Amino acid sequence: MIEEKRDPILGKQSAVFREPVWLVESASVVGKKEGEGPLGNLFDAAGEDDLFGCKSWEDAESFLQREALSRALQKAGWKPEDVRFLFAGDLLGQEIATSFGLECFDRPLFGLYGACSTCALSLALATFAIAGGFARKAACVTSSHFGSAEKEFRFPLGYGNQRPLSATWTVTGSGAFLLSAEGCGRKKARAAITGLTAGRIVDFGLKDSMNMGACMAPAAADTIRQHLKDFGRRPEDYDKIITGDLGSVGQTALLDLLEKEGIDIAGNHMDCGIEIYDAKEQDTHAGGSGCGCSAVVLSAYILKMLEEGVWKRVLFAPTGALLSKTSFNEGRAVPGICHCIVLEKPLAKAKDEG
Amino acid sequence: MIEEKRDPILGKQSAVFREPVWLVESASVVGKKEGEGPLGNLFDAAGEDDLFGCKSWEDAESFLQREALSRALQKAGWKPEDVRFLFAGDLLGQEIATSFGLECFDRPLFGLYGACSTCALSLALATFAIAGGFARKAACVTSSHFGSAEKEFRFPLGYGNQRPLSATWTVTGSGAFLLSAEGCGRKKARAAITGLTAGRIVDFGLKDSMNMGACMAPAAADTIRQHLKDFGRRPEDYDKIITGDLGSVGQTALLDLLEKEGIDIAGNHMDCGIEIYDAKEQDTHAGGSGCGCSAVVLSAYILKMLEEGVWKRVLFAPTGALLSKTSFNEGRAVPGICHCIVLEKPLAKAKDEG
Repeated sequence: MIEEKRDPILGKQSAVFREPVWLVESASVVGKKEGEGPLGNLFDAAGEDDLFGCKSWEDAESFLQREALSRALQKAGWKPEDVRFLFAGDLLGQEIATSFGLECFDRPLFGLYGACSTCALSLALATFAIAGGFARKAACVTSSHFGSAEKEFRFPLGYGNQRPLSATWTVTGSGAFLLSAEGCGRKKARAAITGLTAGRIVDFGLKDSMNMGACMAPAAADTIRQHLKDFGRRPEDYDKIITGDLGSVGQTALLDLLEKEGIDIAGNHMDCGIEIYDAKEQDTHAGGSGCGCSAVVLSAYILKMLEEGVWKRVLFAPTGALLSKTSFNEGRAVPGICHCIVLEKPLAKAKDEG
Repeated sequence: MIEEKRDPILGKQSAVFREPVWLVESASVVGKKEGEGPLGNLFDAAGEDDLFGCKSWEDAESFLQREALSRALQKAGWKPEDVRFLFAGDLLGQEIATSFGLECFDRPLFGLYGACSTCALSLALATFAIAGGFARKAACVTSSHFGSAEKEFRFPLGYGNQRPLSATWTVTGSGAFLLSAEGCGRKKARAAITGLTAGRIVDFGLKDSMNMGACMAPAAADTIRQHLKDFGRRPEDYDKIITGDLGSVGQTALLDLLEKEGIDIAGNHMDCGIEIYDAKEQDTHAGGSGCGCSAVVLSAYILKMLEEGVWKRVLFAPTGALLSKTSFNEGRAVPGICHCIVLEKPLAKAKDEG
């Protein structure tokens, strides 16, 4: 099906890019705990504390975004004015980490909100802009911060509340990604974006904000299932199917939900939230979360594995939990949303494109 | 300049669409006060109170979005599944009005945040998706609600605080817009989207959340100035240059700022926030605000004037104030951002395209 038409519109919810958009460069900046975790050595920078010299958690999160984008630009040799559009977002109310983090770059900004799916959301819309010919270069930035997120969604850290084992730990970190249509060549890019599937809101009625993995797993299952259908692919067509921050509880739910539909991804599923911490040693319970989680793992680890050829093609599928303090207090459920992006090794010829 | 190249990338921050994207249909649903205002008869529906039978202001705002999109779909004869992607957002923390308002449509959703600029932000990104060939039909939805916004940004209504005369009144309302690449013909569409300019964050360091007009005017001036430069146009090439919710205080600031740069838009400037209420009779001080404000005025009034040929081409430039309760309490400034969209009368031949 894919070979026969040039139309990028694919199946019910997907798009395929014959001329891939190149993920040219990226950078990741994380907090102390992330720096001490299993992927610690791979991040571009890790803080000595989580304030990064700022006066508030929110300012610290803005600093992370600024630092991640600055480092990505520097690595690529781009000037800020090379970036036609910024696509960015975070978890805070009215996205203040993004506004105050990126204003200094003085670039046109499209603000996005997809909870912890925002990294994929930003890559999806930047890819549309570039593949559509409306920009030659764009940048995507996403962040989260443990201190600002706990204050925003649960309790300020000073309150010292206890967390159940199903809870995840919001990653302090920001990932920045530079996308380009041209001029970089396959050799220089870190990965090629060759397709995407946009997700619907999936609401199983779960209300436990201390068990976000279970709340989000149905949305991840829905988008992954639809993606495989739209592209006519099987799970084994991907070296890894990578969720953002389901954690250990959500992973079990995801595998169960897909298995019921006859889709077995147990052999090649990976979750950024499980990878980023040593849950036992670091006391992070079900794993890492936050839209910084998938962003920093994508930059530091997933793109590295694609560059090195260990993986040829992966499905990057971060999932967001659509709640706020207000909706939680008003007794509303926590629906989920998942967008996924197909990332391929530069120079690799896609298997089903002959 | 425009005629000579087919490249949609224009100037520093703009895109031009040779094959316009069609704004096929729209709907507006508003609250009681808006229904009693000067544009009251033009809206598709107005509530008898602002709860619309719901239990909270937030649920009422979700209802507005659902109702606006349902009515737009019905008017166009579209089924929800005809919409490939939804582009939507609101002002509340984590965009809960959007999540809970639109989940029932079961369509892929790109969540956006641009404060009161969100209506233009959604039209811009949906236009990229359609003009790029990644969707044939898409929908944009934006909302705000006086009750939920006061609670989110200032004080719950029950607190009964006084408001200075520089304050604006958040519009209770939602506008939904259906965009299409084809199949509708120029005759049937309400307007053609022929270009856009994406805005940067502009921060003059103003901190008064009770004077949002002044906070936002610099961003509106910046984007309008850049738009005219990128397109090589003068203010008189537009029948109207329409800001979203600067109100009377912001309007004065905008005209002053542009005049200093030799740009005189006093003769054809209009502000949705000034039009929607009779400020004296309705005690709304500087005018209406909120991302519902520009959305419902676009749907009910601006598109009508284009359809009727009273206006041939307008620049729609809503501006957002990028603050949150947290950033305000932490003493941060209120930066602004403005995105603008060129809307033309269907069948009209653009002046500078010979």
